[in-house]
Amino acid sequence: MTPPFRVAIAGLGTVGGGTVALLARNADRIAERCGKRVEIAAVSARNATKARTLPLNGATFVDDATALADIPGIDAIVEVIGGAEGVARALVEKALRRGVSVVTANKALIAHHGLELAGAAEASGATLAFEAAVAGGIPVIKSLRDGLSANRFRRITGILNGTCNYILTRMRQEHKSFDEVLEEAQALGYAEAEPSFDVDGIDTAHKTAILASLAFGCAPAIDRVHVEGIRRVTLRDMEAAEELGYRIKLLGIAELMDEALAQRVHPCMVPIASPLANVHDVYNAVAIEGDAVGKVFFEGRGAGAGPTASSIVADIMDIARGAVYNAFTLPVASLKRPRFAAMAGLRTAYYVRLEVTDRAGVLADVTGIFRDCGISVQTFLQHSHQPDENVQLVLTTHETTEESMLHASRRIESLPTVSEQPYLIRIEPL
Amino acid sequence: MTPPFRVAIAGLGTVGGGTVALLARNADRIAERCGKRVEIAAVSARNATKARTLPLNGATFVDDATALADIPGIDAIVEVIGGAEGVARALVEKALRRGVSVVTANKALIAHHGLELAGAAEASGATLAFEAAVAGGIPVIKSLRDGLSANRFRRITGILNGTCNYILTRMRQEHKSFDEVLEEAQALGYAEAEPSFDVDGIDTAHKTAILASLAFGCAPAIDRVHVEGIRRVTLRDMEAAEELGYRIKLLGIAELMDEALAQRVHPCMVPIASPLANVHDVYNAVAIEGDAVGKVFFEGRGAGAGPTASSIVADIMDIARGAVYNAFTLPVASLKRPRFAAMAGLRTAYYVRLEVTDRAGVLADVTGIFRDCGISVQTFLQHSHQPDENVQLVLTTHETTEESMLHASRRIESLPTVSEQPYLIRIEPL
Repeated sequence: MTPPFRVAIAGLGTVGGGTVALLARNADRIAERCGKRVEIAAVSARNATKARTLPLNGATFVDDATALADIPGIDAIVEVIGGAEGVARALVEKALRRGVSVVTANKALIAHHGLELAGAAEASGATLAFEAAVAGGIPVIKSLRDGLSANRFRRITGILNGTCNYILTRMRQEHKSFDEVLEEAQALGYAEAEPSFDVDGIDTAHKTAILASLAFGCAPAIDRVHVEGIRRVTLRDMEAAEELGYRIKLLGIAELMDEALAQRVHPCMVPIASPLANVHDVYNAVAIEGDAVGKVFFEGRGAGAGPTASSIVADIMDIARGAVYNAFTLPVASLKRPRFAAMAGLRTAYYVRLEVTDRAGVLADVTGIFRDCGISVQTFLQHSHQPDENVQLVLTTHETTEESMLHASRRIESLPTVSEQPYLIRIEPL
Repeated sequence: MTPPFRVAIAGLGTVGGGTVALLARNADRIAERCGKRVEIAAVSARNATKARTLPLNGATFVDDATALADIPGIDAIVEVIGGAEGVARALVEKALRRGVSVVTANKALIAHHGLELAGAAEASGATLAFEAAVAGGIPVIKSLRDGLSANRFRRITGILNGTCNYILTRMRQEHKSFDEVLEEAQALGYAEAEPSFDVDGIDTAHKTAILASLAFGCAPAIDRVHVEGIRRVTLRDMEAAEELGYRIKLLGIAELMDEALAQRVHPCMVPIASPLANVHDVYNAVAIEGDAVGKVFFEGRGAGAGPTASSIVADIMDIARGAVYNAFTLPVASLKRPRFAAMAGLRTAYYVRLEVTDRAGVLADVTGIFRDCGISVQTFLQHSHQPDENVQLVLTTHETTEESMLHASRRIESLPTVSEQPYLIRIEPL
């Protein structure tokens, strides 16, 4: 009989527990497809009590996760501790250096240290797999690496953070403010008590950098992602979007602009007819544009025990079947060092919201500034207001450059009648 | 230097030509990702003139495609001739028996002879790959085999024929009849002069049987697919669907019903909020439901030179990198022999359109028949009509069985006031 494929699992939280449960529930199916059984040989977790509730069949339990790499006869380590540093990083480095393959759902780790880890894997002949790190159960990493690998990619656009998509969906559907919905999401477990990793776009930036590395054959460059979160999105923006035929989504975008790589994460107005506009609640989605395939669109659950375990176990099965591949599609020595596009050079249309104290003078001032900056206004939306209240001006522009827009924005902000920094949302073409 | 991976291409039509063009255009990218160059060593085509317009760099040209399998040193044959029998089948069989891997876009061949071909591949150690046979550029075969392989699948639902989806989209958007739009589609090259392969659902049935084989670990069973095409769909059906909140799509569905495999192809009313309802024109889409991942949805171009070549070249690259896998996920000896669900046992809601000559009596007759068959009517839609014209009655039912519905349908048809067979469209839940 073929000997089993022995894995060690570091972390028994939601995802680790889900992985254990899936390996147990579908054990026969998995064995048939791998040609061997997958056995959980060892685990580690901060809390040993959780381990006792899981179908672990006498797996070795260790307190220190990094000790998993010392256990002889382990074929792959599943790292679901999380975090770019600390134990997760130490364990993954140690395992790869010793030639033990690693399956991880840790986007922060891959985004920050992917190059170095891919190098360690390559040197020792181990495999580093991270399908679960981006878009949960959607097999987007494998699609970029395998199914769509004949394409030159132009652009990857993703809704990659379920928490943000949930908040934006509820704001729109229930006409509630960001703060209200965030509180609800926290109560439901869809958002963390400290939500900034999600709502400030950091998580989306990690995933965007990873997708970019696979699509464009470079190491993840997390420090070259322009990042804005969703905290400043208001109900007024939601209503204006609806009126203009858009929905507001936090997108992670990686694209080539004149051969330079642009990576950016920010709220976008997306045309209602676009598939991305119709991705609701905690769902994730990725749109990929390749020179041969055209546009391909993937949608599915981006988080949670089941979907994440689906991707983790698929990676385990891949390695168990003997698949060998480069973490970022190319050998480390062949990875490109792309030129990065400056955000100032972005060309797009904008939505602008301004709060002004007095209407009469400011309209001429604002439109004058746009004219001076060479920005052409496309739509002007205004709503009635109570006397003595501030007025919100909402407008959209034709395509212009980020540089011109920021210049105009700074000049508008300095007007005495404007009470706060104009809020800009970039408008996506269909 | 690593020797090149040498392919022979049988067929230089749209898809063959697209494959040659993609291999030439992205040669460097492909070589980087495979670790070797992919070289077109030989081609065959009915028309040698076409070959002269393609970047073939002195590839050997043969008249008889089956002779490609005799050329020494060929690593893989790309079969894009088409058809379940004849030259295509002879070539693929011969190549696989000799241990030469085959990449094909031929759904009819795989649906009809997949088991036997997979057996030949297994016996000789060759690989049989057919990503391009289903849903063009969407990597759905690889996703079922790799990315989602840890899941037990419940259901696969696809829009798998671009011609039908184009016709149904135009009928709805332009209020034109099936015949009118078919003629336009033929003029545009979206439909064949002899369109029955597409519009009668045969092509969708081939693809459904292939998806089912991968999802459920069995050989393709094309003779166990219930097939209805779209010829009977009328503008009245389109309008009624809109009124009821549905769109009409030709779906290929493979699902487990009480452990039995149900495979069916027929027009469906799909709720407008469903992603499938928003797949327009020649686009294809596949929704996959797995026990761990939940629902995953894929959308992209289902045909055409670029998307099909994208999948063909990805398969070539897979084989060039040394990937080895079973054609239908399991070794041939392990493939399941599923029990097939009888269509009569299907439980769903129905849309029913009836043409009656006289209104007064028939309404009581029809509703009486539904009552006698235990079918509960949910909605009754009726439109004004000119005196002396036939009346169209349109209604929807609550969930019932196919058996009861067919029984009611036959009884209704036999009423003297009913002038033709009632037309039934099954209603999909969201």
